[in-house]
Amino acid sequence: MIERLAIVGVGLLGGSLAKAARAHGIARQIVGVGRDPGRLQPAVRDGTLDRITTDVAEGVVGADRIVLAAPVLANEALLARVWPAAPAGAVVTDVGSTKAGIVAAAERLAAAGPGVQFVGSHPMAGSERSGYGEARADLFAGATVVVTPTETSAPAAVKGVTELWAALGARVVTLDPATHDRAVAAISHLPHVVAWALLDAVVRFEPDALAIAARGFKDTTRIAASDPEVWREILLDNRAAVTAGVAAFRRALDDLEGLMASGDGAALTAFLARMKTLRERLA
Amino acid sequence: MIERLAIVGVGLLGGSLAKAARAHGIARQIVGVGRDPGRLQPAVRDGTLDRITTDVAEGVVGADRIVLAAPVLANEALLARVWPAAPAGAVVTDVGSTKAGIVAAAERLAAAGPGVQFVGSHPMAGSERSGYGEARADLFAGATVVVTPTETSAPAAVKGVTELWAALGARVVTLDPATHDRAVAAISHLPHVVAWALLDAVVRFEPDALAIAARGFKDTTRIAASDPEVWREILLDNRAAVTAGVAAFRRALDDLEGLMASGDGAALTAFLARMKTLRERLA
Repeated sequence: MIERLAIVGVGLLGGSLAKAARAHGIARQIVGVGRDPGRLQPAVRDGTLDRITTDVAEGVVGADRIVLAAPVLANEALLARVWPAAPAGAVVTDVGSTKAGIVAAAERLAAAGPGVQFVGSHPMAGSERSGYGEARADLFAGATVVVTPTETSAPAAVKGVTELWAALGARVVTLDPATHDRAVAAISHLPHVVAWALLDAVVRFEPDALAIAARGFKDTTRIAASDPEVWREILLDNRAAVTAGVAAFRRALDDLEGLMASGDGAALTAFLARMKTLRERLA
Repeated sequence: MIERLAIVGVGLLGGSLAKAARAHGIARQIVGVGRDPGRLQPAVRDGTLDRITTDVAEGVVGADRIVLAAPVLANEALLARVWPAAPAGAVVTDVGSTKAGIVAAAERLAAAGPGVQFVGSHPMAGSERSGYGEARADLFAGATVVVTPTETSAPAAVKGVTELWAALGARVVTLDPATHDRAVAAISHLPHVVAWALLDAVVRFEPDALAIAARGFKDTTRIAASDPEVWREILLDNRAAVTAGVAAFRRALDDLEGLMASGDGAALTAFLARMKTLRERLA
């Protein structure tokens, strides 16, 4: 049982974590930290949070488990403020979509002096929606959460973070931070980049066509409505891996255009059949 | 009331059309034409089709309304066989995703001698699934159907085709064939190309990442599982417009990469916010 769970940033992910922790009864007390008390009030009124504050240092006092749920670069900045304020032995994690930056920041803080123990997490459970109003107690049920320990991580801290997500129904996968960042560049950041470019292309190329857009276009561009602040930070923080992913995408696009230009129907069918099989395997 | 509706190709679209026509009681008799009698039998057993045949000429005898629902290039070839076999005054349409080719083929046939009247249709109601097993009587309810008459189309034929789709609950939009092909290149064919290239890119770049793919990746690549035969024909038939769409996409991708490379967070946020607004307008 967690004695005091502090969640810094009570939006879609932080709010869902608070609701899930409450629903599963895994924490005696849940404290929410945010910049705007007005936005935190609904979570107090509905019984999700026991206490709220706009002061990070005050919010993490006495907390044995702390989760940073602000945008990724904000989480890195918050870590330095949490470090001296939280009790020794507290385990800190985050919910950010990039991991190398915050893990390196935690290792710099650890090298400079004792404090809390940090192990990164990335719940693959977001959506294009944002804010506490969209938070759901079952957001992590059945979702994959990537936990990113390093060789300097304390085993007890890794266990604490893993058990937190498992208790909420998630499937926990362990990757090192750099491997994680490349993997999410491929299956999350690149698809976002492609969705934004696709929407922008149609607006430039044939804007009237949006009036007849059907389910295919809507599904393909759904994530183009994702939160701009959150995604600016992800793209800038994981720029190198995203750029490598875009380069791979350009090569795949070149090859598919080559197939179309060749007019080789059999080769085109074989490629499309291979893609169909691959996609159907994902379920 | 249609006396005899002949549907050539009883897969997802043709089968759904038959089921919808039956459910709405808009045709006294429904005849299904297909290459494989074994695949047509389920539609007889469930009461959707009154009669089946593998012979196109036989299938359209006595039919006052004929719908070609095979892949696009096959529909063009079928048109030449339907033309002399169907009764004078019969109205023929199709459900293909490209229109300039088949409309031009119909105009060549009309110039060569009298026969049926053709007006193209494109119901924007497919899915990545295919086959009669996926057919649904409500597939066209609330869907957009583009009808593509030209200045040579007989008003009665345009009315007949429009009323057919409207009777099944569709919203009918009229576009000329070339405008239609450019519009669907933008909002349907380009998204498919992008989805295939995205899946192919991840397989080349970081195949292990597929194991943690979540909803964003699955939605963005859902249409990559579309039918290979159907899409080979669409891509080859609408190659020029698709290539123009891909060029617009490459320019949009270049610009977004430029924004990321610049590190200009404010400009990146402004772009992402503009895309969010555009996408949310699509509902």
